[in-house]
Amino acid sequence: MRAVRVKEGSTEATALYINDNEPKPSPSHDQILIKVYAAGLNRADVSQRKGAYPPPPGVTTILGMEVAGIVDEVGPNAEDKWTKGDRVMALIDGGGYAEYATAHKNNTMKIPENLNFVEACCIPEVYLTAYQASIFIGKIQEQNRKKVLIHAAASGVGTALIQICRNAKVEQIFATCSSGKLPAVKELGADVALDRNGDWEKELLSKTEHKGVDFVLDPVGKNYFNKNINVMALDALLVGIAMMSGTVVENFDIAPLLRKRLTIQYSTLRSRPVQYKNALVKSFVEWTDNLKMFEDGRMKPVLDTVFNFEDVVKAHQHMESNVTIGKTILKLVHKE
Amino acid sequence: MRAVRVKEGSTEATALYINDNEPKPSPSHDQILIKVYAAGLNRADVSQRKGAYPPPPGVTTILGMEVAGIVDEVGPNAEDKWTKGDRVMALIDGGGYAEYATAHKNNTMKIPENLNFVEACCIPEVYLTAYQASIFIGKIQEQNRKKVLIHAAASGVGTALIQICRNAKVEQIFATCSSGKLPAVKELGADVALDRNGDWEKELLSKTEHKGVDFVLDPVGKNYFNKNINVMALDALLVGIAMMSGTVVENFDIAPLLRKRLTIQYSTLRSRPVQYKNALVKSFVEWTDNLKMFEDGRMKPVLDTVFNFEDVVKAHQHMESNVTIGKTILKLVHKE
Repeated sequence: MRAVRVKEGSTEATALYINDNEPKPSPSHDQILIKVYAAGLNRADVSQRKGAYPPPPGVTTILGMEVAGIVDEVGPNAEDKWTKGDRVMALIDGGGYAEYATAHKNNTMKIPENLNFVEACCIPEVYLTAYQASIFIGKIQEQNRKKVLIHAAASGVGTALIQICRNAKVEQIFATCSSGKLPAVKELGADVALDRNGDWEKELLSKTEHKGVDFVLDPVGKNYFNKNINVMALDALLVGIAMMSGTVVENFDIAPLLRKRLTIQYSTLRSRPVQYKNALVKSFVEWTDNLKMFEDGRMKPVLDTVFNFEDVVKAHQHMESNVTIGKTILKLVHKE
Repeated sequence: MRAVRVKEGSTEATALYINDNEPKPSPSHDQILIKVYAAGLNRADVSQRKGAYPPPPGVTTILGMEVAGIVDEVGPNAEDKWTKGDRVMALIDGGGYAEYATAHKNNTMKIPENLNFVEACCIPEVYLTAYQASIFIGKIQEQNRKKVLIHAAASGVGTALIQICRNAKVEQIFATCSSGKLPAVKELGADVALDRNGDWEKELLSKTEHKGVDFVLDPVGKNYFNKNINVMALDALLVGIAMMSGTVVENFDIAPLLRKRLTIQYSTLRSRPVQYKNALVKSFVEWTDNLKMFEDGRMKPVLDTVFNFEDVVKAHQHMESNVTIGKTILKLVHKE
């Protein structure tokens, strides 16, 4: 089968190429084999391409953590859930940029009828990451977290989280992004869209009577760390999922953490055990009313651009250009 | 009544004096009035004496956050729980260094029969703080946190937490303290007692196959912050309850937080709403088998020194000397 590989000796997007002679993977007992029609791009793929984010042990080094397609083969323990021919979208550990990929039966979801493969492929990684941070770990509903701040709000995860917060009946959604994306972020449901290059800290505080927010999602890291602490309300929670601006924070004052009883929690998805991912997917499917939220318009996959599989270099360059709103997807056409 | 006050113009222990003409407080609807026979000292009292930790709004400025004594008067809504003459110990918002103090009916516990007032007064603040950090918030049992690190392990909270962890069937307890207190900390149940002035980070890592611990209790703050991060295992939790060494951390690298999916949570007890404290006390009483753990020796109040009420200056100086193991208590003798 065809799959994307990274040429040795370079970490640039141009190092990506299609190898025509990859062995087709076989599903293990609990897995299915998916004939891939769409593969999602994620920031972590760029890190992996650069050698900074190796796949977990035992996982293929082919990039790609989510796919949508048709069930092609069913492992013996997966027959209770899937049948050859089912339209599915799946969270996978790796190997998504390929004509075929294996997925755990319980990390796979049925594609809602109204969505095509490209649209469906906008869902697994970013919605599950956003759901994990806000509902599964963040418990924003259980703990009645009313005001939230979402950084990089036009990213795949950001756009998913805005919609999840909307459906979780959050009272006020603050969202930062670059100035050109402010209208799109408001359109998606943010109450206050803040220019990431402006004084968002001051603006947020003035709009919350200087009380701040109850929940922060942060993929930025270093540059926002102390500012995030400053805009957190009593008993607030910050969930960090990446550190795109760097990792070493200076002048970190822990006094406000004690005074405001703050919690800071970092989380990843890919490195979690399969049982955890199974439970997460199950919880997400239930929470979205058996994915009906995607059928009746309460939630919408946010697609930025579709590239042909053969244009994977352009697709990576596009994602790295930081102009995207939502997902970048590779579309595959099968010859047979 | 007599109560301890702080002379204006000084923050030293010597500024403490007894005022003979304090008005006796009255219990509100949900409160009881306690005739105080023992009042516990806490680090926070020293901070408050120094002006650094003002009492919550509406609370007396008389120091003291825990007492043991006899119920003297019962508020109309507290009659379902308490009767004049009951022997009680209570967590209070302030006003403990006095002949009489008010307490919320649900923040008050019956004194186990085998304990006298001084022993009972070693329980409320430190056991509830330790229980809150480890079980109520930290969920070390629910989340199967097997290895714990307790800093300032000879402090009141530290000695309480060692015992709580023992009864929570924690697998391995690491505990730091000054070298002279190491034997006492082992005696209380720590598996590995570490000299706080030695390289405890290295020693702990070598004793855990470099995996680290699942839970850290930290009242130290700044000086231990980065070291704590280094000794935390995958998915570990740090609960911070004070910052005795300072608050501003340099070179704080958040990368390990993401890699190890760490959670850092700061917590206080005094500033919490009354409903929260009620729930905490209820949970603690249930968890200790209706306080039977204190009757049958599974848990023991750890008393360092008893001072007469009139020697409150000496008592504060003693606690500040950092030679204590467990609690410093003031004993009151009533003339009538």
